[in-house]
Amino acid sequence: MIRKFTSGSPVETGAVTLALQAENMLDFPFVNSFESGEFTFCFSMRDGDIVYGLGESVRGINKRGWIYESYCSDDPFHTESKRSLYAAHNFIMLSGSADFAVFVDCPARVRWDIGYTKTDETKITICSADFDVYLITGGKPPELVREFRAAIGKSYVPPFWAFGYQQSRWSYHNAEAVDRVIEGYNRANIPLDCVYLDIDYMQSFKDFTVNEAAFPDFKSYVFAKRKQGIHLIPIIDAGIKKEDGYDVYDEGIKNGYFCKNADGTVFEAGVWPGVCAFPDFLRPEVRSWFGSKYQYLLDMGIDGFWNDMNEPALFYSAKGIGEALDEAVEAKGKNLDLGGFFHIKDVFTGLSNRQEDYSSIYHSIDGRLVNHQSVHNIYGAGMTRAAGDYFAEVCGEEKILMFSRASYVGAHRTAGIWFGDNHSWWSHILMNLKMLPSANMCGFLYCGADLGGFNDNATRDLVLRFLALGVFTPLMRNHSALGTRDQECCNFEKTEDFRDVIEVRYRLIPYLYGIFKKARDQNDMIFRPLSFDYPSDKIARECETQLMLGDDCMIAPVYEQNASGRTVYLPEDMRLLKLSGRRVESIELQKGLHYIDVALNEVPLFVKKGKKIPLCQPALRTRDLDVDNLEYV
Amino acid sequence: MIRKFTSGSPVETGAVTLALQAENMLDFPFVNSFESGEFTFCFSMRDGDIVYGLGESVRGINKRGWIYESYCSDDPFHTESKRSLYAAHNFIMLSGSADFAVFVDCPARVRWDIGYTKTDETKITICSADFDVYLITGGKPPELVREFRAAIGKSYVPPFWAFGYQQSRWSYHNAEAVDRVIEGYNRANIPLDCVYLDIDYMQSFKDFTVNEAAFPDFKSYVFAKRKQGIHLIPIIDAGIKKEDGYDVYDEGIKNGYFCKNADGTVFEAGVWPGVCAFPDFLRPEVRSWFGSKYQYLLDMGIDGFWNDMNEPALFYSAKGIGEALDEAVEAKGKNLDLGGFFHIKDVFTGLSNRQEDYSSIYHSIDGRLVNHQSVHNIYGAGMTRAAGDYFAEVCGEEKILMFSRASYVGAHRTAGIWFGDNHSWWSHILMNLKMLPSANMCGFLYCGADLGGFNDNATRDLVLRFLALGVFTPLMRNHSALGTRDQECCNFEKTEDFRDVIEVRYRLIPYLYGIFKKARDQNDMIFRPLSFDYPSDKIARECETQLMLGDDCMIAPVYEQNASGRTVYLPEDMRLLKLSGRRVESIELQKGLHYIDVALNEVPLFVKKGKKIPLCQPALRTRDLDVDNLEYV
Repeated sequence: MIRKFTSGSPVETGAVTLALQAENMLDFPFVNSFESGEFTFCFSMRDGDIVYGLGESVRGINKRGWIYESYCSDDPFHTESKRSLYAAHNFIMLSGSADFAVFVDCPARVRWDIGYTKTDETKITICSADFDVYLITGGKPPELVREFRAAIGKSYVPPFWAFGYQQSRWSYHNAEAVDRVIEGYNRANIPLDCVYLDIDYMQSFKDFTVNEAAFPDFKSYVFAKRKQGIHLIPIIDAGIKKEDGYDVYDEGIKNGYFCKNADGTVFEAGVWPGVCAFPDFLRPEVRSWFGSKYQYLLDMGIDGFWNDMNEPALFYSAKGIGEALDEAVEAKGKNLDLGGFFHIKDVFTGLSNRQEDYSSIYHSIDGRLVNHQSVHNIYGAGMTRAAGDYFAEVCGEEKILMFSRASYVGAHRTAGIWFGDNHSWWSHILMNLKMLPSANMCGFLYCGADLGGFNDNATRDLVLRFLALGVFTPLMRNHSALGTRDQECCNFEKTEDFRDVIEVRYRLIPYLYGIFKKARDQNDMIFRPLSFDYPSDKIARECETQLMLGDDCMIAPVYEQNASGRTVYLPEDMRLLKLSGRRVESIELQKGLHYIDVALNEVPLFVKKGKKIPLCQPALRTRDLDVDNLEYV
Repeated sequence: MIRKFTSGSPVETGAVTLALQAENMLDFPFVNSFESGEFTFCFSMRDGDIVYGLGESVRGINKRGWIYESYCSDDPFHTESKRSLYAAHNFIMLSGSADFAVFVDCPARVRWDIGYTKTDETKITICSADFDVYLITGGKPPELVREFRAAIGKSYVPPFWAFGYQQSRWSYHNAEAVDRVIEGYNRANIPLDCVYLDIDYMQSFKDFTVNEAAFPDFKSYVFAKRKQGIHLIPIIDAGIKKEDGYDVYDEGIKNGYFCKNADGTVFEAGVWPGVCAFPDFLRPEVRSWFGSKYQYLLDMGIDGFWNDMNEPALFYSAKGIGEALDEAVEAKGKNLDLGGFFHIKDVFTGLSNRQEDYSSIYHSIDGRLVNHQSVHNIYGAGMTRAAGDYFAEVCGEEKILMFSRASYVGAHRTAGIWFGDNHSWWSHILMNLKMLPSANMCGFLYCGADLGGFNDNATRDLVLRFLALGVFTPLMRNHSALGTRDQECCNFEKTEDFRDVIEVRYRLIPYLYGIFKKARDQNDMIFRPLSFDYPSDKIARECETQLMLGDDCMIAPVYEQNASGRTVYLPEDMRLLKLSGRRVESIELQKGLHYIDVALNEVPLFVKKGKKIPLCQPALRTRDLDVDNLEYV
């Protein structure tokens, strides 16, 4: 059962598609209070209760013991300290002494104190007086999720080829660099379906342009790559370069499509292109204009996009940098003491993504001027919606690959997400694993992490172990940052190990695609915590290093460096399939704890007793997969 | 067997006490080369080989798969990305296809590429032409460590009371704040032996001064606390405030005791007190002068110290900040583009601990001017040596507690170490656990981490689980940073759980003290990787979440949030002792994998079959422990 409670006049977020009559807030069945324009409500937790939810965020599947904030943030340091990542996924669910789920539909900041201040209490603070809250009851977590998912509408389905292996880097600067990657994979016989174009493919970082020196005759190039079975996936950023004569900027200015300052002038901030203006994605006419801009690249033969920097990320504002420089000039004359030093250092280090700058942005909603802070969390989702609506109109379903960095529930219907700028850290294998079921709860089925880690240098073994998790994630993309070690599989020693792992993916694609479509159709999760399936098994209930996959399988990747295997818990008798290239080894294991050997070129998959899973023969491209000839193992 | 190879004219570091005849570098049995003043040597590794060593550093007990650098660094973000922490512990050891250990005795930077660039090769680069390298062969890791330890001399032993529980915070600003902590612990009946005084007890952060407004009649106060069984442990920093009339500064200037610039003027940089000068701890007369300064606090009744900021940490130099401000002034006139913005931001964020500043420091060794970079890693150890030599002379053995942040092998004879400014992260429980055997290898027996985590906010459960590891570390100190959540045990809900855990420590002190002394006398380790004891047990060999403790025990702390227990591997039949306050539960377990329940107020300890361990009755102070009345469980 799902109930809706409305306070004030909420902004339409597009999150919920189910029409529901709002109930009176006086009937809201949680202890609550309004104070200084913020609404707070609480529920208590008993020992052993689990709190699920919050989608893309740090820490455990069980979110107890921390304060999280829904506030889409461009923050590349995903440590346990963080409260916010790129997304705002306002869904949580208690399981144990009581079972219910809550969805806060509000694009302003929401704070979730889940047993941090008081160990036995969850306190949710909505930084707005205008919101909807949905309460879902009647059933255990799997049913609660299904009911929520039914209310928010069916998840996005990408094209089939988007289940292939994808290689990215910031940046392949020109066609030669892209070709080198493809040739490297071809030479090593490692399957590959997509190569990404990060910001440098553009002319001066301008959306919907191509640097012609780097990619001469881009259209022919795209089609030539497609002939080889390779899709090129360009990045699109939220900020539009301020440059007279640049059509997108000129049109935006002419039509008043950009976000404003309080005084009605265009809000500007520095991002990759330097000073930018920001489309007001909250307005339907702006979305429809911005969506149509993708046509430029569709015309070139492009059929996949990743939307980035749409929290929106703000490197600096003119105001911020001006104030900082003023302070520096003033400090110059003085004998800086310690406080003065730390102050000036903090001023410069704090220039990006300043709250003060966000607070100075205004949107226009139905003619009203609305401060950005009250709608911050749907800005990126608005960008995705702009593109998604356009693609649905001109391309049809399941034709275009798209995923976004910033997201809000509702965007799951038109795009996937990736988990942003993680690190080449062993700890991030588990962190990203834990995000998968939480993202699924919110409808984001097409998702995955930067395999091998985006920031910092990866080691060969880390990339292999990360890939062995990525074999199961719908988005299987290796991505790394400028200045880090080359992270393409073909650039490491003994490439045959990488081929063995990625071939396992291709063998599994028919199966994984089937699980994906079924989860989509039935409003189900692809990845579930073991506790969903074995709620009375104490070890399973707390297990956060393994996940259920579809109806019949369990995954348990190796996540420690220099480990030749791992300990795994089987909540029932299962078969361990060790998959490696064309090789399949099947080992019967009984319920309980086991140590399993997993070589660097092996992918472990656990299959429930009596179940079999289909494998096809590997191929270098998804289009070459013989999906009708399946072997059941 | 230990062999010594000498290149050039190494600076005397004091690391090795054993007199050995140096062999000719031409007989050095590793592939090696000299290039641009750097010496590189390599050895190969087979699959399954383990590389131990490097003392205090991030990542695993097995160091394979990363590049580390010995370069004492004030870096509070202990992530997998880091190459250097506060210490330079130049000992590594290969185990597997061959068994040998290497100690690089050189105070300049040393780079350890342990299978990062090439997975099967370790490449060690000494950034100097003057060094000793020791090669130890003949035996397995336990014997290799003992032979190394015999060569570097016996480890420091602190006073018995230093095994008590210790509470710290940056900062207890005055006597009232200290009293509140003691009263809080007394009221909750939680044992406590020490309270720390961080930088704010000083007058304007000046070493060997006391802020009399905050601590009026400090001497009486110290003695009054001592009567209550509480030792106050003040911090001492490396930098001396530049202030005419401040005796330490004046004496240093008058006698030319401070480090210099190339032009012979005093090197100055900003640290806590603002602009500071830095004693040249490499000179015997400076050490003897600086050591004698501790007498000021000894006279007040102080008998414990922690030496900090002695890498040395440099917040900023006049040159650095001047250049930064100049750049800012220049930028002010321009229209900053993206590159300009990132440049100016980087200039300000990079002001602390600049390589350029370190390179401008000069020491005087035997009358020669020596650049800091060639001796960087013994600067902090020199500070410790200054104090240690003085204490040995005037106080005698085992009278003074002292530990340091920066360290180098050799300092283990006069002091302990703590593992620096960690975070209140669950992942840091394991990171700090893994440092313990590595630090022990280098002779640092009295060591431990900031329990509960220094930076960022802790949760109640994190502090309890961290303490349950700390129960076994010789230094058991809870420490946290200014601005973070109160982390004293008495400030959390249900303090009885904290009492239960800390009482376990006090019950174990006679046993732990015995293990400590034995390890010291026999040049042995307190904490060992399981692989040392079970080299042919594959699971034990790779286990990095459990440690052997002394001869008879194994520890396996819970390190995951919201877990009510953990999986543990027993390499032989053992008894699980669940210790909690005065309660002892004993559970026989067979060799193999087990899931064990561990409540938040319980400390698990595994005891080998047929062995018993002694417990005394708990007390609120170590002085009240009845160590003659032991119960064997």
